[in-house]
Amino acid sequence: MAINVTVWNEYRHERNNPEVARVYPEGIHGLLATVLQKEGHSVRTATLDEAEHGLTEEVLEKTDVLIWWGHAAHSEVSDQIVERVCQRVQDGMGLVVLHSGHFSKPFKKLMGTSCNLKWRGAGEKERLWVVEPSHPIAKGLPEHFELPCEEMYGERFDIPQPDCLVFLSWFPGGEVFRSGCTFTRGMGKIFYFAPGHETYPTYYDPVIQRVIANAVLWAAPSGGPAPVFGFAEPLE
Amino acid sequence: MAINVTVWNEYRHERNNPEVARVYPEGIHGLLATVLQKEGHSVRTATLDEAEHGLTEEVLEKTDVLIWWGHAAHSEVSDQIVERVCQRVQDGMGLVVLHSGHFSKPFKKLMGTSCNLKWRGAGEKERLWVVEPSHPIAKGLPEHFELPCEEMYGERFDIPQPDCLVFLSWFPGGEVFRSGCTFTRGMGKIFYFAPGHETYPTYYDPVIQRVIANAVLWAAPSGGPAPVFGFAEPLE
Amino acid sequence: MAINVTVWNEYRHERNNPEVARVYPEGIHGLLATVLQKEGHSVRTATLDEAEHGLTEEVLEKTDVLIWWGHAAHSEVSDQIVERVCQRVQDGMGLVVLHSGHFSKPFKKLMGTSCNLKWRGAGEKERLWVVEPSHPIAKGLPEHFELPCEEMYGERFDIPQPDCLVFLSWFPGGEVFRSGCTFTRGMGKIFYFAPGHETYPTYYDPVIQRVIANAVLWAAPSGGPAPVFGFAEPLE
Amino acid sequence: MAINVTVWNEYRHERNNPEVARVYPEGIHGLLATVLQKEGHSVRTATLDEAEHGLTEEVLEKTDVLIWWGHAAHSEVSDQIVERVCQRVQDGMGLVVLHSGHFSKPFKKLMGTSCNLKWRGAGEKERLWVVEPSHPIAKGLPEHFELPCEEMYGERFDIPQPDCLVFLSWFPGGEVFRSGCTFTRGMGKIFYFAPGHETYPTYYDPVIQRVIANAVLWAAPSGGPAPVFGFAEPLE
Repeated sequence: MAINVTVWNEYRHERNNPEVARVYPEGIHGLLATVLQKEGHSVRTATLDEAEHGLTEEVLEKTDVLIWWGHAAHSEVSDQIVERVCQRVQDGMGLVVLHSGHFSKPFKKLMGTSCNLKWRGAGEKERLWVVEPSHPIAKGLPEHFELPCEEMYGERFDIPQPDCLVFLSWFPGGEVFRSGCTFTRGMGKIFYFAPGHETYPTYYDPVIQRVIANAVLWAAPSGGPAPVFGFAEPLE
Repeated sequence: MAINVTVWNEYRHERNNPEVARVYPEGIHGLLATVLQKEGHSVRTATLDEAEHGLTEEVLEKTDVLIWWGHAAHSEVSDQIVERVCQRVQDGMGLVVLHSGHFSKPFKKLMGTSCNLKWRGAGEKERLWVVEPSHPIAKGLPEHFELPCEEMYGERFDIPQPDCLVFLSWFPGGEVFRSGCTFTRGMGKIFYFAPGHETYPTYYDPVIQRVIANAVLWAAPSGGPAPVFGFAEPLE
Repeated sequence: MAINVTVWNEYRHERNNPEVARVYPEGIHGLLATVLQKEGHSVRTATLDEAEHGLTEEVLEKTDVLIWWGHAAHSEVSDQIVERVCQRVQDGMGLVVLHSGHFSKPFKKLMGTSCNLKWRGAGEKERLWVVEPSHPIAKGLPEHFELPCEEMYGERFDIPQPDCLVFLSWFPGGEVFRSGCTFTRGMGKIFYFAPGHETYPTYYDPVIQRVIANAVLWAAPSGGPAPVFGFAEPLE
Repeated sequence: MAINVTVWNEYRHERNNPEVARVYPEGIHGLLATVLQKEGHSVRTATLDEAEHGLTEEVLEKTDVLIWWGHAAHSEVSDQIVERVCQRVQDGMGLVVLHSGHFSKPFKKLMGTSCNLKWRGAGEKERLWVVEPSHPIAKGLPEHFELPCEEMYGERFDIPQPDCLVFLSWFPGGEVFRSGCTFTRGMGKIFYFAPGHETYPTYYDPVIQRVIANAVLWAAPSGGPAPVFGFAEPLE
């Protein structure tokens, strides 16, 4: 099943920070687009500094699943585009929010909470545990897997109770984190996945790529009935 | 346990519509304040047309549970006050949203969805079923109870999956509704309760009053630890 | 994706009650098998009076999704087979429990509750509402649909809080029912679906067939990692 | 509010193992009873080797909240008493399951899963994080707290998705664990809390005592309506 995926990236670090440019010479969006194309999907990319951040009505209309990576410039994302993205999620578009996207405007708006957390950028090991192995996003994964070098994200993670908690992360500094969480908003399925600091080659990891590919399949619209709202005549 | 309750009411219908004034001569807020004072709580009221809608920083700071009734003037509630209310919920204030408050700015913002639904103002019977009798909000209630005359609210109700579904409603026109739902946002507990159209004497019903009184007890802050966010040193 | 489905039916009513035999001359299992074969699945059937109720180790080992219809003879299902079925669910087999199967031994054992409910066999209309249209089981369905003649099942339905509440039912006698519920037990996905009294032609209804076909796709094993239990050496 | 608490303990380790006897000379049940009496509750104890394991119909009838600690002799608990305990939970009795009670017959029966996990008895540090600070069980707790010496319990913990995940645990060996989970079965509220290996003085820790005392308050029956099951006349 070919899915129309749009990979959105802030795409500033890669252009401003040589360290990041070395890791992701084509941008995080470029790498993820390549990965998902290999899965057989129809993939486009969009970035902050494009017109309308690359997320025109037309692009979003054709997007089944939107992937979101942002970090330093969340505030530069226009409220109008945020509204548009959230409306498309309501209408059924899947949304996969990566790493520092926890603080992006669309994610915060859809969650209704601060989405705040603890963090530490010290290049520590992160170990992820599959706690709900029945979930489609866990397909083909090992029971636990490791990233040698990640940013620590720790609890309390200020999100509403997830529909399903798929992954938990462990960090050597003593923290834990709900690092893979699903939500539903309107017709749209949302997956938050924590790994992916820009200075580490996390998105080259085949297990991480598997998670994101699984999430795209899971988050694609299911084809359920669009609700009818407003005044209703009695049915009998 | 005396709880500091603030009952917020739009308080326009009661002043503009004689039919509503007859039912609630002191306003919906006035009636609910009397009900909750009899429960031993410390109750104040606040209304749309007061300065800052009656919801100053000081008032909210002293409020453990905020009750919200609004309908025709949702858009007149200032975004600044909405932000303030939502921040207080984040910090632990309970929120009990009544009836047409489903479309209020604070509720929509906290849910992250449209909160839309079907409706019909035809004065029909509403029967509420307790589906989660273990929940504190069900204390002392009968297994089902009826309102002879209510506005129909019907599914699809566009909310995130509730933490707990306490009540389901049945309407003679063929509709069902998740009429009592709990949510958590940050440290704050939220209860949405559907009955209460302004032209019907719903809030005089002793069972409805019992539900609201139970909800106040349930939604009051629990005294858990305020999360610490931001940079964190490793613990070991 | 061809799925190995086993349709289990008590298959007593069809043989003992001419009224039921007229409706389901090949048994409920026979009809459902035909329906699911047309979906491209590999389907076998099994019934109570076969050796081991038709659910040998070998059959269950090859079953991806088990469908269960039982009613009058729940107590005749051997505890050993129940244990075997539940173990397979733990290991990842999907389970779709239909109608009076709410009181079957496997369902009660997996739920850990009485699974009791209200009922009335008066051939009333049942209207089902899709309350979670994002769920894969809602694919291709109308927002609500009706069965002209069904047994009433009403709340309180004594089940644990479902992972997802997909359908709610309305009955003209004034009852509501959580008629489509998902659960997870171990690696196994479970869907309970209420319609299907043996004297009514419910399973000929194309919308009902669509729900069951969707449920089979949803409940099939996802391919996640089998958990490792027991003593564990430290990972570092 | 004085609650009738029964503390059940297997009470074998304390009598057979001098190391455990030194830590809990009056038995784990004796210590917990003292702790909960100081909270103002009416507390009795019951142990495996008493007649009917100390859990007669009369005792259970008068019990609002049952605390359960068991380990080496789960299989010696009679199925009849397990049935009785589970029925009382159904009818509203709260149940607080401690540590190795994860493998007790009542807990497994109520969960409907294997309740299996990873473990290592190496006297390691356990750090518990409050992930749902709004929950009443988190009242008065610090955001995280530590036990210097505990048994490691690690994921995958084979339980149904909890109603609320209150605590997560971190272990230095690289594991995480959902160490504080709430469930509902029938009218009964259930809390599983992981710490408490018999050779460590965990239950002397004031924070751990606070958690258990909070859990007792939370799990006590709420006074909701007992459901009516079976044949139902139409309501209109």
